Amino acid sequence: MATLGDIGVSAAINILGAFAFLLAFALLRIQPINDRVYFPKWYINGKRTSARNAGNFVGKFVNLKFKTYLTFLHWMPQALKMSEAEIIAHAGLDSAVFLRIYILGLKIFVPMAVVALVVLIPVNVSDGTLFALSKDLVVNNIDKLSISNVRSKSIKFFFHISMQYLFTFWTCYLLYKEYDRVASMRLKFLASQGRRAEQFSVLVRNIPHVSGRSTSDNVESFFRKNHPEHYLCHQAVYNANKFAKLVRKRNRLQNWLDYNQLKFERHPEKRLTKKTGFLGLWGERVDSIDFYKQQIKQLDKRLTMERQEILKDPKSIMSAAFVSFNSRWGAAVCAQTQQSKNPTLWLTNWAPEPRDIYWKNLAIPFFSLSIRRLIISLAVFALVFFYMIPIAFVQSLANLDGLERVAPFLRPVIELKFIKSFLQGFLPGLALKIFLYILPTILMIMSKVEGYVAVSTLERKAAAKYYYFMLVNVFLGSIITGTAFQQLHSFLHESATQIPRTIGVSIPMKATFFITYIMVDGWAGIASEILRLKPLVIYHLKNMFIVKTERDRVKAMDPGSVDFPETLPSLQLYFLLGLVYAVVTPILLPFILVFFSFAYFVYRHQVINVYNQQYESAAAFWPHVHARIIGSLLISQLLLMGLLSTKKAAKSTPLLIVLPVLTLAFHKYCKNRFEPAFRKHPLEEAMDKDIEDRLSESDVNLKSFLADAYLHPIFHSFEEVELVEVGVDKARIPSPSGSSSPSPPHDVRDEEDGPSHNVQHYEYGPPGNVYQYEAEQSSYVYQYDIESHHNVYHY
Amino acid sequence: MATLGDIGVSAAINILGAFAFLLAFALLRIQPINDRVYFPKWYINGKRTSARNAGNFVGKFVNLKFKTYLTFLHWMPQALKMSEAEIIAHAGLDSAVFLRIYILGLKIFVPMAVVALVVLIPVNVSDGTLFALSKDLVVNNIDKLSISNVRSKSIKFFFHISMQYLFTFWTCYLLYKEYDRVASMRLKFLASQGRRAEQFSVLVRNIPHVSGRSTSDNVESFFRKNHPEHYLCHQAVYNANKFAKLVRKRNRLQNWLDYNQLKFERHPEKRLTKKTGFLGLWGERVDSIDFYKQQIKQLDKRLTMERQEILKDPKSIMSAAFVSFNSRWGAAVCAQTQQSKNPTLWLTNWAPEPRDIYWKNLAIPFFSLSIRRLIISLAVFALVFFYMIPIAFVQSLANLDGLERVAPFLRPVIELKFIKSFLQGFLPGLALKIFLYILPTILMIMSKVEGYVAVSTLERKAAAKYYYFMLVNVFLGSIITGTAFQQLHSFLHESATQIPRTIGVSIPMKATFFITYIMVDGWAGIASEILRLKPLVIYHLKNMFIVKTERDRVKAMDPGSVDFPETLPSLQLYFLLGLVYAVVTPILLPFILVFFSFAYFVYRHQVINVYNQQYESAAAFWPHVHARIIGSLLISQLLLMGLLSTKKAAKSTPLLIVLPVLTLAFHKYCKNRFEPAFRKHPLEEAMDKDIEDRLSESDVNLKSFLADAYLHPIFHSFEEVELVEVGVDKARIPSPSGSSSPSPPHDVRDEEDGPSHNVQHYEYGPPGNVYQYEAEQSSYVYQYDIESHHNVYHY
Repeated sequence: MATLGDIGVSAAINILGAFAFLLAFALLRIQPINDRVYFPKWYINGKRTSARNAGNFVGKFVNLKFKTYLTFLHWMPQALKMSEAEIIAHAGLDSAVFLRIYILGLKIFVPMAVVALVVLIPVNVSDGTLFALSKDLVVNNIDKLSISNVRSKSIKFFFHISMQYLFTFWTCYLLYKEYDRVASMRLKFLASQGRRAEQFSVLVRNIPHVSGRSTSDNVESFFRKNHPEHYLCHQAVYNANKFAKLVRKRNRLQNWLDYNQLKFERHPEKRLTKKTGFLGLWGERVDSIDFYKQQIKQLDKRLTMERQEILKDPKSIMSAAFVSFNSRWGAAVCAQTQQSKNPTLWLTNWAPEPRDIYWKNLAIPFFSLSIRRLIISLAVFALVFFYMIPIAFVQSLANLDGLERVAPFLRPVIELKFIKSFLQGFLPGLALKIFLYILPTILMIMSKVEGYVAVSTLERKAAAKYYYFMLVNVFLGSIITGTAFQQLHSFLHESATQIPRTIGVSIPMKATFFITYIMVDGWAGIASEILRLKPLVIYHLKNMFIVKTERDRVKAMDPGSVDFPETLPSLQLYFLLGLVYAVVTPILLPFILVFFSFAYFVYRHQVINVYNQQYESAAAFWPHVHARIIGSLLISQLLLMGLLSTKKAAKSTPLLIVLPVLTLAFHKYCKNRFEPAFRKHPLEEAMDKDIEDRLSESDVNLKSFLADAYLHPIFHSFEEVELVEVGVDKARIPSPSGSSSPSPPHDVRDEEDGPSHNVQHYEYGPPGNVYQYEAEQSSYVYQYDIESHHNVYHY
Repeated sequence: MATLGDIGVSAAINILGAFAFLLAFALLRIQPINDRVYFPKWYINGKRTSARNAGNFVGKFVNLKFKTYLTFLHWMPQALKMSEAEIIAHAGLDSAVFLRIYILGLKIFVPMAVVALVVLIPVNVSDGTLFALSKDLVVNNIDKLSISNVRSKSIKFFFHISMQYLFTFWTCYLLYKEYDRVASMRLKFLASQGRRAEQFSVLVRNIPHVSGRSTSDNVESFFRKNHPEHYLCHQAVYNANKFAKLVRKRNRLQNWLDYNQLKFERHPEKRLTKKTGFLGLWGERVDSIDFYKQQIKQLDKRLTMERQEILKDPKSIMSAAFVSFNSRWGAAVCAQTQQSKNPTLWLTNWAPEPRDIYWKNLAIPFFSLSIRRLIISLAVFALVFFYMIPIAFVQSLANLDGLERVAPFLRPVIELKFIKSFLQGFLPGLALKIFLYILPTILMIMSKVEGYVAVSTLERKAAAKYYYFMLVNVFLGSIITGTAFQQLHSFLHESATQIPRTIGVSIPMKATFFITYIMVDGWAGIASEILRLKPLVIYHLKNMFIVKTERDRVKAMDPGSVDFPETLPSLQLYFLLGLVYAVVTPILLPFILVFFSFAYFVYRHQVINVYNQQYESAAAFWPHVHARIIGSLLISQLLLMGLLSTKKAAKSTPLLIVLPVLTLAFHKYCKNRFEPAFRKHPLEEAMDKDIEDRLSESDVNLKSFLADAYLHPIFHSFEEVELVEVGVDKARIPSPSGSSSPSPPHDVRDEEDGPSHNVQHYEYGPPGNVYQYEAEQSSYVYQYDIESHHNVYHY
């Protein structure tokens, strides 16, 4: 076990690491050449077009003002300058509420840390069981400050119990206030939004097939009949998978063409040629640029034909549609009610924002959804508890003996001592490292298979899965040694009262481990987040090889967005650690406080200067955050009960059993009180906005506004093709953003880190959108990322 | 342990008992004097006004046709004569679907019994572990036919596992078909109903208080704004508790007056007098009839004043209202959507039928509801697991020593040997018997405290609580000896895998106990149900002492209704027993089959001839029935897993673990597929009926139809008072029943078994209801049972 000295050393190393990152960041961020990496948000907003202090030629790349080098923590006060309202306007409500989680952490844990350190540490130290034992044992200094130091059956445990009560009430009080605040922020935000397509639209799924009648007619007649006064129009959803494949192929060719043209521009003396056969290995040698140009031309023809076919073929219309209403009230009613006598048909739901839709999942039928959810929940269970099995298998293959057996010719190389020791240290961990690296992707794919239709929902579901993984494998896995599978096995064979005891008794012993974890993952990890090393490298690589025009440069910046599927679960883990250790080993709390405050600064800076959210869910993730903090409270209460029962403070159990019941009741109350604000759509609200609209602008043509808001984005992608058939009026391409937020966060976001080879982009002229566009947003780049089926807009 | 012979004896006793009941029933039912006890439904329907074969004076009381005595099972074919559609029309959908549960039991268990007896009994017998052991042990013969007889580690367990699979799939298949059928029956039934107040009305609760504005105005303006095209009118809910108290007092006085007048009529020579003081013990002696008449007159004045006060005082208007819409579509929309930004205000729900409303609970605010639910769920938990503690305490007090200590003067009596032995055998069981007798009442009170607003919901919730009690205390309590509290303790200290093992291993040993239970509770119990001994005695007592007019005689018949809070849970227990023992001890199945078929006959007879449902919920209980049969399946699977793991058939566990997962998935699918039909109200349905209405009768004044449908029933009770203020038009008292069912089941139902002293009854003239009334229903007796706050109608 680590002593206080060990922890000091570890802290010093991590603090140094964090400082190194911060220093590097401070140096890099003021270089004009990196401006687009560290301040992309401002470029996207149109507030900045070129780096500041760009003087002479050298000044364009390197910052020559040496004074600025001295203020290397200057970004921190800068990050605090914006008010919350400004952040909401600047980056959206999601980001603003995300930052509030850190503040909530500070609000919860600062008083908790003060009280715990002042009250519990003296109590723990004074009892001194471990002082007596210390002559024989190497006693962890931190244990002297923890509950382990209190004698069994001591009356002093009532301090701990009353602290647990106090902390629970304090946490619940703050959670209640915060939920209230976030809910009202959400309602205010939604109320302040301008006219948006999703306010009037409902996603209808599982449209039944009526023979001899097209889906469109079917939708039309159903809603004309059942919502006669409110139905306006609808947009069918086309199955564009084959078309998307062709578009992908075209993108590939276009990239090659670009590459060849670029090469040619740089070396006009050298004509590039290419063989037409397989992989360019044989066949006739032709001019590359001509070849690709011709290929693209051919493909464009096929695309046009395919497009026509899709639009004409009734089979390509999927059993889903976006139905629009003439008032928000009508849409709110349709979204919340059951339409058909058969509850599995005509399923209605609020339409997500157009840019938030995950198109691929729109056509999944109801029955398939049930099966998918079942399979995925089993798969997640297996992943959480049994993930070590395949990894261990791969590890067993990937040891040196296995490698020699598979590839005997490598033996001479492997037998070299240096290489052998390197491989022996490296190989077994490799499989695990790769797995952990791709885990978020795996979880996201699982969520996609489950069939959710909005990117925001997908991210929330992936976050939930990641949290379970962390809870079992990081939290429980660190406390009880052994794999998750072994834990599961022992849980099944232990009684309901024994489990919290087994875990509870190990809790104080693992405090030092978690302190180190917080420093490595929380302190140094967050510091590396602000440095943005990967985007930095990629941006400069792109800049060197790909960027030709200013627009390309804009595209090359990869602002990214708050990575909810990863950040939310790890944030929730810190809440769990704080709540569990608050009573047991309060010395852990200051470390968590440092994390919360530091991460708050960093993410505030990133939200203001870097991130560009792909969608706006209006803080739809909050109920999950709330529920998981409540879950953490419950875990902390159960574990304390388990711990105290091993301390023979048996009489304390009845005192503590009240807490989980109260906590659960509180959760249920909050759920009833606040959650509908995140899930449902009050008619009062809709009616208010309808009335407001009617009073202010009575002559708006709503139908044309909604006409192609929900057209599959792939059909937007050909400017040259006449879009009359699908009712698209080019002059009226709707903006997916609200008009009220000054500069909505729309942006290119590549799924992968590589240069955007798969991304096709077409430029529309000044769109002159009737409702939302400001004049300064003069370029509208539409981009469809075929891999992810996200449609992302780009100004 | 009982041998086959013992079971035979027990069976013989119970069969004899059942036959005795049936014989008594056969004799009693054909006596004209009992006609109103055994065929009240026909009197209520107006299909019969006096007993058949009423010839001479004696023939009015005793059946003199001896031929009819010979056909004492004649009621059975008679009970089968009605088709299901006729039963729905005659007794409502609730009763028809209730009967279907028995048919479902037969459908599930007949093929199961055949397969299990043919396949498993030979398998069990052939292995013969117990044959070998039988020389030493007194072996239960039934055990030889059960799974206990199979050797450990035997390959033959795969027969049992495959049977479990087969039975699970068979049960799920039938459950699916039945859910589908019941759901479509429900929709058809609802669609076939005529215009009813509840189709147009929504119950709004938690109306916020706006200062300087009455609740009525508040409701009016809110719905006028948010449902401008659909809002029609609303009916405030008055707090009539004080008024109800006065009405109760008046009823008491009226009863005394009736009693005195009756006495006077019989003995006109003797004037009755009464002292005015406390309990009639002292004070001035006055003429009784005059005294009561005067008292009632005074009270009537106070009642009139109180009524005026309630209607005028804004404080007596509760924060709930019944809001009516001009179309079913408007009501369906309002009931399913969230109205207010604050999700705890303006809570809307479908209004129950007027006669189904439990008025007392209408004013409970949202916050209080959360607390109440929490407290009651804790109370139910305590009741289920710890009910033995207070009973044991009472028992310890109620033993002879305790009695002697409390009342030493009784010692000489108690010391008598005969009385002593009687008391010793009697007293300890008394507390438990009293508790079990009043248990359904306790559970109903608990449900009422929880705050549900419909009687049908209250009964379903009470049924759920009763089921948990039975599951823990009858099923588990019989398998694992010891109190429920001890079970809970051992469950908490056993591992998750150990619990099914502990229970599973005792399962085969308890088969004989459950066979006896089925015979006593199922066979003889059901036979006693048909005899209706209590209503028979009460009817004749009432007939002797109270009945003066024909109307009194109608009131004296107590048809009762299907007692869902008790019958549904016990029915579900039989499903549980059948499913658990199907694989383990298949010999139990024939006993269950006898129960299902016999109970089917009996309840069919009762539904046709006796019961008169108080409300019609259109089979709203079905999802609970379905869910509990699924629960029984899960329990049977887990217990089989536990049992097999003790038989060291360890490899079988992975084979069986698939089943609960599949069963749960099936349940989830069914829930999504069918449950909305029981909980939600499709707009398509509402629109269809609206259109139908518009086409057929366009000039109906809906507003006057709905005007006082939802007036608190207590205000209906004074004919003499002008009801103009509350908008009641006497000519248009709405019928609570549909027009399509030929004779809807409205009826007096006294909560208690005593003569209806607390029931006040006023007669209205021929109501001539504009929509539903047939001419033959010439008397409309309105009756308000103040104890239960049920309003019951009476034709």
